[in-house]
Amino acid sequence: MNIPEEIRIVEIGPRDGFQSIKTWLPTEHKTAIVKMLLSAGVDSMEATSFISPKAIEQMKDASEVVESVKGHADMDRIYALVPNAKGAERAHEAGVGRIAVVISASEAHNLNNVRRTPEESLQELKIIRREFPSLKVKLSLGTAFGCPFQGEVADSKLIFLIDGVLDLGITDIALCDTVGVADPLQVIRRVGLLQRRYAAQDVDWGMHLHNTRGLAAANTFAALTLGINKFETAVGGLGGCPFAPGSSGNMATEDLLFMAARMGLASKADIGSVIRTAEYIRDVVGLPIDSKINTQTRDTVTAAQGRADQARRPSS
Amino acid sequence: MNIPEEIRIVEIGPRDGFQSIKTWLPTEHKTAIVKMLLSAGVDSMEATSFISPKAIEQMKDASEVVESVKGHADMDRIYALVPNAKGAERAHEAGVGRIAVVISASEAHNLNNVRRTPEESLQELKIIRREFPSLKVKLSLGTAFGCPFQGEVADSKLIFLIDGVLDLGITDIALCDTVGVADPLQVIRRVGLLQRRYAAQDVDWGMHLHNTRGLAAANTFAALTLGINKFETAVGGLGGCPFAPGSSGNMATEDLLFMAARMGLASKADIGSVIRTAEYIRDVVGLPIDSKINTQTRDTVTAAQGRADQARRPSS
Repeated sequence: MNIPEEIRIVEIGPRDGFQSIKTWLPTEHKTAIVKMLLSAGVDSMEATSFISPKAIEQMKDASEVVESVKGHADMDRIYALVPNAKGAERAHEAGVGRIAVVISASEAHNLNNVRRTPEESLQELKIIRREFPSLKVKLSLGTAFGCPFQGEVADSKLIFLIDGVLDLGITDIALCDTVGVADPLQVIRRVGLLQRRYAAQDVDWGMHLHNTRGLAAANTFAALTLGINKFETAVGGLGGCPFAPGSSGNMATEDLLFMAARMGLASKADIGSVIRTAEYIRDVVGLPIDSKINTQTRDTVTAAQGRADQARRPSS
Repeated sequence: MNIPEEIRIVEIGPRDGFQSIKTWLPTEHKTAIVKMLLSAGVDSMEATSFISPKAIEQMKDASEVVESVKGHADMDRIYALVPNAKGAERAHEAGVGRIAVVISASEAHNLNNVRRTPEESLQELKIIRREFPSLKVKLSLGTAFGCPFQGEVADSKLIFLIDGVLDLGITDIALCDTVGVADPLQVIRRVGLLQRRYAAQDVDWGMHLHNTRGLAAANTFAALTLGINKFETAVGGLGGCPFAPGSSGNMATEDLLFMAARMGLASKADIGSVIRTAEYIRDVVGLPIDSKINTQTRDTVTAAQGRADQARRPSS
């Protein structure tokens, strides 16, 4: 086991969470949540998506969301998701530092998601790199552990895409269990294989794990044993993929932070602030949340621990 | 890693699940569920609890539940929980083959649970062994990973109880995360320590993991890496401990079976039958269930897998 001493959070609630919500969320709610999460200390964030409003109307205020962050946080912490060169252009104009580009290892899923084969998506990414060389790019490698349309996805499909983006100088790569079908042994085998294969390339691996089938925490632990320390999680366990049937619920940021704290791993993010953001989302914005850690479940442990620490003090 | 090839299920829904339900469940619903789960192929089951109806009225039909199983399944698969010698007497009269005795490693929790210190509970167990030598006994070692009242529980508290029951010839021991505070590194450290310490005693370890803080599956995987193959889970994720604040939700049997199947581990239990039992509990009995695997989440994977298997077939 190669458990890291500290974890990093890529908060994805404002993008992966909000994109699947059909009712309009007022921009001021979005920007309030983005600011609360940045203040909570998440290392970085997918704040919005520059996708066509025809595809996802919820994201039509992407530029305003990005604008609101300026002066509030280092733009280097902000990712915007873009589906194509047009989105990259809008993201660049809006002033984000980083973009996330999703390409699915599964051809069926990528066709469904962005109407391109993975090869065509790589070509589009090449254009983005050429036209907007200042944008830092993350590859969000979708359906990396299985696809709802075609079942298992071979290692070779991932390797093809990773080779492709490394050729473009992209080393920020998130392995996405888009529909929550990964299991921990698969994570250890597949991620371990990729780590070994690309050991010389200094890839910054991240894990993006959906909890659709209850295995996000187990898969997180599996990744931690490999030394992976970057996790894409959503406050309140928001999220899912609107184009992937049966997919819902990201690993909740507060649940990951609790798990990490129990294991003695550090994080820059403050769990109390993340819990308060989830409460805001539930109570003020009115969205259902799906996380296990809240004030009560957290405090039961913290209070008992406090009493225990007290009891252990020498009574001199 | 020492992943087992097959897992064993101790289904605890009819005991740990039903005991925390305040509204009366008709005996015929209880017996129907017990029979469905036995037919589903769970290796064994905590079918009921011989506890005073004053403490838990829901369990007042314990004898009838046991009676209903006779002729339907080998009584050696049936555990009844007993809190004391009086309960053991009733269980013995009812004809169960096995009893489960809960003793908490945490003194505060044991006092709260059965109004005895752990030492006093061990003495009571000694009396049970003497008076009912034919009853096979499982120790359910409560708060083995933390206590809601006193925080951390030292290894030495567990060792004291394990030494005590081994002296009484009891080697069936479940390590219970009664309130869902265990983390996977703690499981690996603590369970690993106990495995090494008692390597010569042929203990049949089981894990009983609550999902209160979302870590049951991660803790299950941690235990699997140590070669642990016996898990106490509840259909539909029912359950909790009525005497432990903040405790709710066992690891769901169907979720464990899905996880195991994805990892390639065998089980005697049929996941489809367990899912149908959960649906019966939700739709006929009218209880809320809390599991991630259901017909839809399971079938998305199975159907995609089926299509993939088909596609891989040579087209000759």
